[in-house]
Amino acid sequence: MNIGLVGLGKMGFNLALNMLDHGHGVVAYDTNQNAVKKSTEHGVVGATSLADLVDKLPAPRLVWLMVPAGKITDLVVNELKPLLAAGDRVIDGGNSNYKDSLSRYEAFADLGVHFFDVGTSGGTSGSREGGCFMIGGDAEEFKAIEPLFADISVENGYLYTGKAGSGHFLKMVHNGIEYGMMAAIGEGFDILEKSPFDYDYEKVAKVWNNGSVIRSWLMELMENAFSKDPHLDDIRGVMNSSGEGKWTVESALDFEVPAPVIALSLMMRYRSQENDTFTGKVVAALRNEFGGHATVKSHS
Amino acid sequence: MNIGLVGLGKMGFNLALNMLDHGHGVVAYDTNQNAVKKSTEHGVVGATSLADLVDKLPAPRLVWLMVPAGKITDLVVNELKPLLAAGDRVIDGGNSNYKDSLSRYEAFADLGVHFFDVGTSGGTSGSREGGCFMIGGDAEEFKAIEPLFADISVENGYLYTGKAGSGHFLKMVHNGIEYGMMAAIGEGFDILEKSPFDYDYEKVAKVWNNGSVIRSWLMELMENAFSKDPHLDDIRGVMNSSGEGKWTVESALDFEVPAPVIALSLMMRYRSQENDTFTGKVVAALRNEFGGHATVKSHS
Amino acid sequence: MNIGLVGLGKMGFNLALNMLDHGHGVVAYDTNQNAVKKSTEHGVVGATSLADLVDKLPAPRLVWLMVPAGKITDLVVNELKPLLAAGDRVIDGGNSNYKDSLSRYEAFADLGVHFFDVGTSGGTSGSREGGCFMIGGDAEEFKAIEPLFADISVENGYLYTGKAGSGHFLKMVHNGIEYGMMAAIGEGFDILEKSPFDYDYEKVAKVWNNGSVIRSWLMELMENAFSKDPHLDDIRGVMNSSGEGKWTVESALDFEVPAPVIALSLMMRYRSQENDTFTGKVVAALRNEFGGHATVKSHS
Amino acid sequence: MNIGLVGLGKMGFNLALNMLDHGHGVVAYDTNQNAVKKSTEHGVVGATSLADLVDKLPAPRLVWLMVPAGKITDLVVNELKPLLAAGDRVIDGGNSNYKDSLSRYEAFADLGVHFFDVGTSGGTSGSREGGCFMIGGDAEEFKAIEPLFADISVENGYLYTGKAGSGHFLKMVHNGIEYGMMAAIGEGFDILEKSPFDYDYEKVAKVWNNGSVIRSWLMELMENAFSKDPHLDDIRGVMNSSGEGKWTVESALDFEVPAPVIALSLMMRYRSQENDTFTGKVVAALRNEFGGHATVKSHS
Repeated sequence: MNIGLVGLGKMGFNLALNMLDHGHGVVAYDTNQNAVKKSTEHGVVGATSLADLVDKLPAPRLVWLMVPAGKITDLVVNELKPLLAAGDRVIDGGNSNYKDSLSRYEAFADLGVHFFDVGTSGGTSGSREGGCFMIGGDAEEFKAIEPLFADISVENGYLYTGKAGSGHFLKMVHNGIEYGMMAAIGEGFDILEKSPFDYDYEKVAKVWNNGSVIRSWLMELMENAFSKDPHLDDIRGVMNSSGEGKWTVESALDFEVPAPVIALSLMMRYRSQENDTFTGKVVAALRNEFGGHATVKSHS
Repeated sequence: MNIGLVGLGKMGFNLALNMLDHGHGVVAYDTNQNAVKKSTEHGVVGATSLADLVDKLPAPRLVWLMVPAGKITDLVVNELKPLLAAGDRVIDGGNSNYKDSLSRYEAFADLGVHFFDVGTSGGTSGSREGGCFMIGGDAEEFKAIEPLFADISVENGYLYTGKAGSGHFLKMVHNGIEYGMMAAIGEGFDILEKSPFDYDYEKVAKVWNNGSVIRSWLMELMENAFSKDPHLDDIRGVMNSSGEGKWTVESALDFEVPAPVIALSLMMRYRSQENDTFTGKVVAALRNEFGGHATVKSHS
Repeated sequence: MNIGLVGLGKMGFNLALNMLDHGHGVVAYDTNQNAVKKSTEHGVVGATSLADLVDKLPAPRLVWLMVPAGKITDLVVNELKPLLAAGDRVIDGGNSNYKDSLSRYEAFADLGVHFFDVGTSGGTSGSREGGCFMIGGDAEEFKAIEPLFADISVENGYLYTGKAGSGHFLKMVHNGIEYGMMAAIGEGFDILEKSPFDYDYEKVAKVWNNGSVIRSWLMELMENAFSKDPHLDDIRGVMNSSGEGKWTVESALDFEVPAPVIALSLMMRYRSQENDTFTGKVVAALRNEFGGHATVKSHS
Repeated sequence: MNIGLVGLGKMGFNLALNMLDHGHGVVAYDTNQNAVKKSTEHGVVGATSLADLVDKLPAPRLVWLMVPAGKITDLVVNELKPLLAAGDRVIDGGNSNYKDSLSRYEAFADLGVHFFDVGTSGGTSGSREGGCFMIGGDAEEFKAIEPLFADISVENGYLYTGKAGSGHFLKMVHNGIEYGMMAAIGEGFDILEKSPFDYDYEKVAKVWNNGSVIRSWLMELMENAFSKDPHLDDIRGVMNSSGEGKWTVESALDFEVPAPVIALSLMMRYRSQENDTFTGKVVAALRNEFGGHATVKSHS
């Protein structure tokens, strides 16, 4: 197949190489033309604009977006629309909100363009060597692009998930679970760290990866991380987040699902981004008011 | 009545004045003899030791402990035991763990001494002007000391709660509720603080204290706190805790009660005492491992 | 003043009586004409339609909406718009989402109509005898309606909170705090209920209302509730919710505020509305898979 | 080696077969003599009492306890003590509290007996085919029993974790992480279940096990569970727990570690064991008191 790939960040670049490995033709565009140039050294055909990318693709065209969710995806989609024709296909492989994907599906459908919302997991190594793909969109149309997913995923690593929006929704929930699992692992090691025992965390992660109930890819990654920095001394515990954990909690609220573990894993990320909290100031002030408990002076 | 008061900290000193106001005689001892001296200026009879305090009381004696829970209470109790006689009464007005109180009740009972576990709420102003007392111990014996509680509490501000341990248990749960209420108030103001609106927090607390569903003494204290420091700029949000929040959560676990609000209000206090967390380091390391997300370097 | 009141539910009806008590004229409309008729017996002027209500008001008109948030408020607002003239004033006293209020403010402003988003607290008794009002909108225009709020609120029970949206936002956060406080109180009594002690809950609530740190209107209500049903045997613990707790958590997410206590108080409400959870099924299935732990058969 | 195995439940029986597979001799005792008899059919030497078991072992003896934690382990330990001699070794492979293990280590040390606290993970299949073992105790003495662990674990599936108590502590934390991971997975599927999409959960679990970030043994088990019961219709979501999740949270409290995810995963298990909550009754009563919101009648 010939794929028009928009976006050559870490994920997009690796995906291009993965596609090339399997004999597909890749035309790529990125606002960063250095990234485009670098990709051409690996066999990608470079494009200087979205229009150029579309021109270089045979009809019906297949365009794969691998750009940041939200406004950038909107910009690209809006620029793409007039360039495409009925029968073309567009894949959004980024981490878009499923509600946006549903809107885009409908807007493209008005033009006769088939839109797929594709959740991509597996990290940068997955996009390079075989990832995990969750694909929402029209079932009939999916058949035309299925061979591509069969090539670029690990074995059994792709799934047609149903109607438009279901791919990104499933990826969103996947990330919500990921947040919770990561927090559980983090809390466990935190308890070990403050315990009276003296564990070698790399060995702990290793033994947990061999035969235990919690063996998992995340624990393997943890083994690797501890092998490089045994107490994570070089890392501050600031936990950033993209939108998907938040959207998962919002969906839980929308559907009235009690999801305390995922919600708390997200809120502790927010907490980690602050040095101090107003909540804490209020509670400290109250303790001072009723009990005369000394407060800690702020340096601000 | 004549009360032997052990402990002249903020709470004990105010309690002594409160008792004197109501015509009771107070003999007081504290390891800090300056505190004893200061109290004598208000009409307290000073004691130089526990033995001296006991000597200065008429039989049957009434001894009120107002010292830090745990080891210090243990020390005082152990020193008191041989000094007392059958028929004497001992009140522990501190924040002792109810399990300890139960043990002390039994140990004193072996000596014929009547022990009461008394939870005290209302803060320093309450102990001075009329507090709230929850009293566990023998029902018959309670009658002998009830007039004292009628005097030093606010109207309707004391309750005989049942068998030994029930007073401190009830005070413990009271504090657990207090933790949750304080956290709820804190979170609310935190959301206001980060909102696009520009509220005058003192006025907010004031309007909420007049007619709203959440009107409460804690909100009154908050109004007072904001009147002194409108954005709490001088206070760091470090939320310390004595043992009672922790014991409440432990009791919830012991009785298999889901108590997420109280548990989280406690855990966020722990979080506020750390500048960084190992949990955060683990999650940041994982995000770096699978997604190449940059970590924040530690300054350590 | 003359007020056109739309909505004669529990809150609206009590508010009408409150306004009448203070010498204001009230023209009222409700789709339930029986409610209108009943109100006329107390001195309200009945209206048969919104148009009739507007007709019966002197210019510039003041219309107070006391109808359910969301679609019903939308319906009323849309029907009102063509009936009003520049200089008229509209108050939304319901529990509308602040984002909707901001939109409505702008839509009314295009017509020269002054819109106020007014959060109302204090329950049905407050709306009857003096409530708590948080008022967002134009500062200049507020002066014209301030005397009304001075009359119908308890002393110090109203606050101009700032620009449009700030009134409903503040009420929303108030309710979020309320959720957290109620859950904290509930968890505390739940721990008492499962403890080895035998408390009289009415007396517990009463003593806590006299001198303790957690004395509050909610605890007074609890004292009242226990006086009628000492163990709440007649009530199932199904905790319903209107939108404001959810919106508070959504705002916390939007502003990246860690608000675990409010979030969990909401999620436990959702949990209470289910007899069983899919989360629980998954966990039970997993325990069975790895440990052979028996599952409980479903009756479905 | 020759091992005296006490306890032939699911885990113990599988462990015996595992040991036999690797050429070890197993003498086994269980209060259920049918279980003993059944094991003899596989090559185990049966014992009719603990004394008989000890008699049938060569000195220095190696006794492996695989019995329920708590009182039963206490009973067995107390009966064993007078039967053993200096130089003997005892392994507790059950899920004992690490504080108990520390006490037992010390009590055995007084007799010259070497005690090891061994956390065992991997479920019933792991104990049969190769499990994961975390071993605390004396480092020197561990060398003598290391070959046994090399045989019965999966490759790299055992770890000497340090001084007495560290094995069971590590297993406890492992289970805490397991609780959190399971809850995260459960909540994710719950959100899918209530979503507007129609997923095939077995296929979802399968695709998540192939290339995604959350691939894990637990997700493999989930794939298997869904293959048998696609919507888990036959299972009620009652989540039981043994002690280790609780102990993990208690340790988090003891060391002041914020561990909201693990704490909530435990508390939601408690919640699942109740049909109704007193917390819910209190909140419903409060809503009725201030807002006149109808309560749901209890059927009790």
